[in-house]
Amino acid sequence: MPVNAYAAMEKGGKLEPFEYEFGDLGFDEVELEIESCGICHSDMSMIDNEWGFSTYPLVPGHEVVGKVTKTGDGVKAVQVGQRVGLGWFAESCRRCRPCLSGHHNLCTNSTATIVGRHGGFADRVRASELWCIPIPDSVDAVTAGPLFCGGATVFNPLVQYEVSPMDRVGIIGIGGLGHLALQFARAWGCEVTAFTTSDDKAQQAKDLGAHHVANTRDEGTLKKLRGSFDLILNTTAVGLPWSDYVGALCAKGRFVNVGGNVEEPISVGAFDLIGQEKRVGGSGLAPPVIMQRMLEFCGRHGIAPITDRFSMDDCNDGMQHLRDGKARYRVVLTRQP
Amino acid sequence: MPVNAYAAMEKGGKLEPFEYEFGDLGFDEVELEIESCGICHSDMSMIDNEWGFSTYPLVPGHEVVGKVTKTGDGVKAVQVGQRVGLGWFAESCRRCRPCLSGHHNLCTNSTATIVGRHGGFADRVRASELWCIPIPDSVDAVTAGPLFCGGATVFNPLVQYEVSPMDRVGIIGIGGLGHLALQFARAWGCEVTAFTTSDDKAQQAKDLGAHHVANTRDEGTLKKLRGSFDLILNTTAVGLPWSDYVGALCAKGRFVNVGGNVEEPISVGAFDLIGQEKRVGGSGLAPPVIMQRMLEFCGRHGIAPITDRFSMDDCNDGMQHLRDGKARYRVVLTRQP
Repeated sequence: MPVNAYAAMEKGGKLEPFEYEFGDLGFDEVELEIESCGICHSDMSMIDNEWGFSTYPLVPGHEVVGKVTKTGDGVKAVQVGQRVGLGWFAESCRRCRPCLSGHHNLCTNSTATIVGRHGGFADRVRASELWCIPIPDSVDAVTAGPLFCGGATVFNPLVQYEVSPMDRVGIIGIGGLGHLALQFARAWGCEVTAFTTSDDKAQQAKDLGAHHVANTRDEGTLKKLRGSFDLILNTTAVGLPWSDYVGALCAKGRFVNVGGNVEEPISVGAFDLIGQEKRVGGSGLAPPVIMQRMLEFCGRHGIAPITDRFSMDDCNDGMQHLRDGKARYRVVLTRQP
Repeated sequence: MPVNAYAAMEKGGKLEPFEYEFGDLGFDEVELEIESCGICHSDMSMIDNEWGFSTYPLVPGHEVVGKVTKTGDGVKAVQVGQRVGLGWFAESCRRCRPCLSGHHNLCTNSTATIVGRHGGFADRVRASELWCIPIPDSVDAVTAGPLFCGGATVFNPLVQYEVSPMDRVGIIGIGGLGHLALQFARAWGCEVTAFTTSDDKAQQAKDLGAHHVANTRDEGTLKKLRGSFDLILNTTAVGLPWSDYVGALCAKGRFVNVGGNVEEPISVGAFDLIGQEKRVGGSGLAPPVIMQRMLEFCGRHGIAPITDRFSMDDCNDGMQHLRDGKARYRVVLTRQP
């Protein structure tokens, strides 16, 4: 039986019904019956071939929630009937140094769910058992999808950059990523500041966990906050006053990018980093073990993505909603509305 | 009795004999009879008012070795007669968060030895007991001076960026800082690569501890080393192919600046950092506890600055030697030749 999917047939194209056949189920592979799938900004980037490695037909979707229906002969981590989530990665080699070190998201030989394979805008999808993360009962399955890409993206820096509950954390951008980052940082025990350029997001940011909201449209805001943050997480993809943000870090502070800034390079003077031992870094996705623990953390703290929901069959409407900047905060496509 | 010093009387000026009087000895202060003093690139920068906060007369010198001759009423860490070293900092507040955290070099209210006070091109100098670091017998006092600024500058990143003896470390620039960094990284147990643009430094770099020498004048060199380093230490102050160096880092690798790049900002694409969770940071000097341990480490491993020596009275010759780029690798002024 063919997979019933939605695909962009060309760069920037509308999504159209598209059928394809799976090959043999791999030794380590799991097949999922999809229940829902989030729409991530990078689905849009892939449809638009923004990064230059898209191939068409392109079936987007890498924030999948589904039930295991088939398992390859070597699969032991999940069982048929189990509900799991699948994010950006479909496979990592498990042999390279990052994999052997528990950093499968940094695998130098990984395969992404929608790069050279077909993703979760479909009734079924396949991936390695490694990246099919069981969803605990404590997590609402209907809204869980965005945790597997957006959530992992902003949770992982708290781990990898060793954020302490005593820390003062700033979150730039209150959108699909930022609204999860605020919830995570608050539950992590930190003092949380939301940076936004939009006053009408101030109350929302506080509802999501921000103790403070700083409107950076006012040029003096960052200068007043000089030396105030242990970690600033940049969830945006726009040019920023880099030096002012680095200046807002305290000694040994870290400015971490997760938004994949495509507009301009990050430009910082060496002296801005040297005197107070500051760092500018990046973080991308999260390894399976951190995704498991992120889900436990979400269950324990009642953290969930806030979603706008569309039927899978209305995926073009959902995509347009995202393109129009209307998502509050994350779009999810459901198969049984 | 006045202090007999050498001072620049104006921006870029030659050093001239200059006498000044100490005030009352502070509660925490220590007075040193100077035996020797290294010349650091930042003495030159201060004479030339490169950073805009020099005041004249300016007595340079912040790589001091001397004997304690007087101690303030509150001094307990050192005794009269003891040999100590004094580096960039003369005082830190011991009350701010960085100080309370053991990072006195990141004190937000510190005083530098040659900023608003007079330094070590003199027969005597004063500083807080905090920054007068006892020199163990295992360390050669005559060449120890440069450890207190240049040495601390390149030792500290190994600590603060948590370099493991299993790591692959690259050192950019084989000069006053780099020649110490090579020795440190080798004794730290790492696989060490020296980056240089000068073939005639290759053998010297190996003698100093490099397992490999990479000539970056050849444009292909860095691309061939893609993904190869856990830490790259940039000791230079020139513009570099930032993206290629960040590309030469492995997953979770760190590119650390200590050279105070004044020529151009560091410019890196966010994607260069995100995919492999890389970091670009800085480090400046070292806190007292790390300076103490650095000296023990030097004694244990026979690490010492390689110096060109001049008499204190020939400090202009020593300074010119540095300005001419002839120092191999660090200039030291001695008072008893």
